[in-house]
Amino acid sequence: MAEPQHKRQKTDKKYELLYHPRIPGRGEYVRLALEATGTQFVDVANQEEGGYAKVQAVFDPKSVGDEHGNPPAFAPPILKVHGEGKEGKDLVISQTSNILLYLGSKLGLIGSQEHELYIVNEIALTALDLSDGAHDTHHPLASVKFYEDQKEAALENSKNFREVRIPKFFSYFERVLKSNEAEGKGRHLVGSKLTYADTTLWQVLDGVKFAFPKEVDARQDDYPLLLGTFYGGLKQEKWLAEYLESDRRLKYSMGVFRHYPELDRQ
Amino acid sequence: MAEPQHKRQKTDKKYELLYHPRIPGRGEYVRLALEATGTQFVDVANQEEGGYAKVQAVFDPKSVGDEHGNPPAFAPPILKVHGEGKEGKDLVISQTSNILLYLGSKLGLIGSQEHELYIVNEIALTALDLSDGAHDTHHPLASVKFYEDQKEAALENSKNFREVRIPKFFSYFERVLKSNEAEGKGRHLVGSKLTYADTTLWQVLDGVKFAFPKEVDARQDDYPLLLGTFYGGLKQEKWLAEYLESDRRLKYSMGVFRHYPELDRQ
Repeated sequence: MAEPQHKRQKTDKKYELLYHPRIPGRGEYVRLALEATGTQFVDVANQEEGGYAKVQAVFDPKSVGDEHGNPPAFAPPILKVHGEGKEGKDLVISQTSNILLYLGSKLGLIGSQEHELYIVNEIALTALDLSDGAHDTHHPLASVKFYEDQKEAALENSKNFREVRIPKFFSYFERVLKSNEAEGKGRHLVGSKLTYADTTLWQVLDGVKFAFPKEVDARQDDYPLLLGTFYGGLKQEKWLAEYLESDRRLKYSMGVFRHYPELDRQ
Repeated sequence: MAEPQHKRQKTDKKYELLYHPRIPGRGEYVRLALEATGTQFVDVANQEEGGYAKVQAVFDPKSVGDEHGNPPAFAPPILKVHGEGKEGKDLVISQTSNILLYLGSKLGLIGSQEHELYIVNEIALTALDLSDGAHDTHHPLASVKFYEDQKEAALENSKNFREVRIPKFFSYFERVLKSNEAEGKGRHLVGSKLTYADTTLWQVLDGVKFAFPKEVDARQDDYPLLLGTFYGGLKQEKWLAEYLESDRRLKYSMGVFRHYPELDRQ
């Protein structure tokens, strides 16, 4: 008798996620795509002893690539896929949306028709732009400097983010859900099934709610599909509810999404 | 006798580029992929009377999509492809890297092996991150405000961009070229043929050189493959040399890449 699918997956080490340890960050977009499909993976920096050194080697500023023919990475998240690279060696790819594109194609998160892939990808990319915007609210001048050393600029950037960017992005996503309402019922952005646009947007919303709770709360009723049907509905799906309860879900802290009360609506 | 390929392409209106008029901007990454493959397209805002109104309708903040079943776009560039969308209707897609992914796949700019697509895409995405960083040097606080109203923050952001970001990105691209030197000879980032990673990085370099001429000049010798073999070599390729001489190549002005001498190395 064949081993059950579930059990087989539990011992499958095909996918390795290489990311900074202890924060959700941009690694979370990749984790959600894997969790949504019940795909086993190794979260290297969080699960292997000395794992972060292995991660750092891939984006080491002196690296000229690896023995599998992969170029160096600019920054994490990075995905390693055993046996899927050049001449059957390992594939090592980076850039969040690129990893999602790869996993989405392999794991069935890109919709059911060819053209849908590009709609899924554009929505995920736009969600990731909102994620980058949230990062820039606390680091508008230089990522390498402390928040405290750019606080004045952060206050200005955040004001614009809350007053201009949040409504612009939320309105866009609300209208995308509206445009697909016949098929997606407000629960899916593209077609009638879960895609990586859904998982990615969900995480961005969750992060923005964490960073700017008062701002999002004040706008709750303006985006009923987005913040109600979509965000709330997905959160109740079994796989996501279970994941959020598990110790695999890392807590927000000093990553992309940070809660500085002074940057929120006063 | 069949019509020559060149002539057929000249009357093919399959691809429409929807972008702001009169600036290269992010539309230029799409234009280069089309120019590199000799693909005829309509640059709607620059070539059609009243074209920009047609562009604006697609990202109108009230749009809930079009009659072809496409969702609204967040922002240009946007690509319209006749007959390639839902049930043979028109496909309308946005996000620069997503359009490049689509065109790259259709026009042969994604390398020759399956895994190469993801390497091409990650490098193009990283080049576009550098492009976004160049934009943020003059607009670190809010895109909707004038440069003059955020000049102090712009001076700080630019200092970091020149001293930290430029060498970090340039070093990365130099090492990618190095990692592929056996096949690409320093002229191609992935494999031995032109991909949209090449065309995209070339345009970013050209824009950064325009915006920060002194800074790039001072670093010229540090990146011989990138700024010499790759940038210089591609510029001499027939299609690019001809395009740069043509009136289709728009001049830099108030777009992503701007030359404010006070932001450059002093």
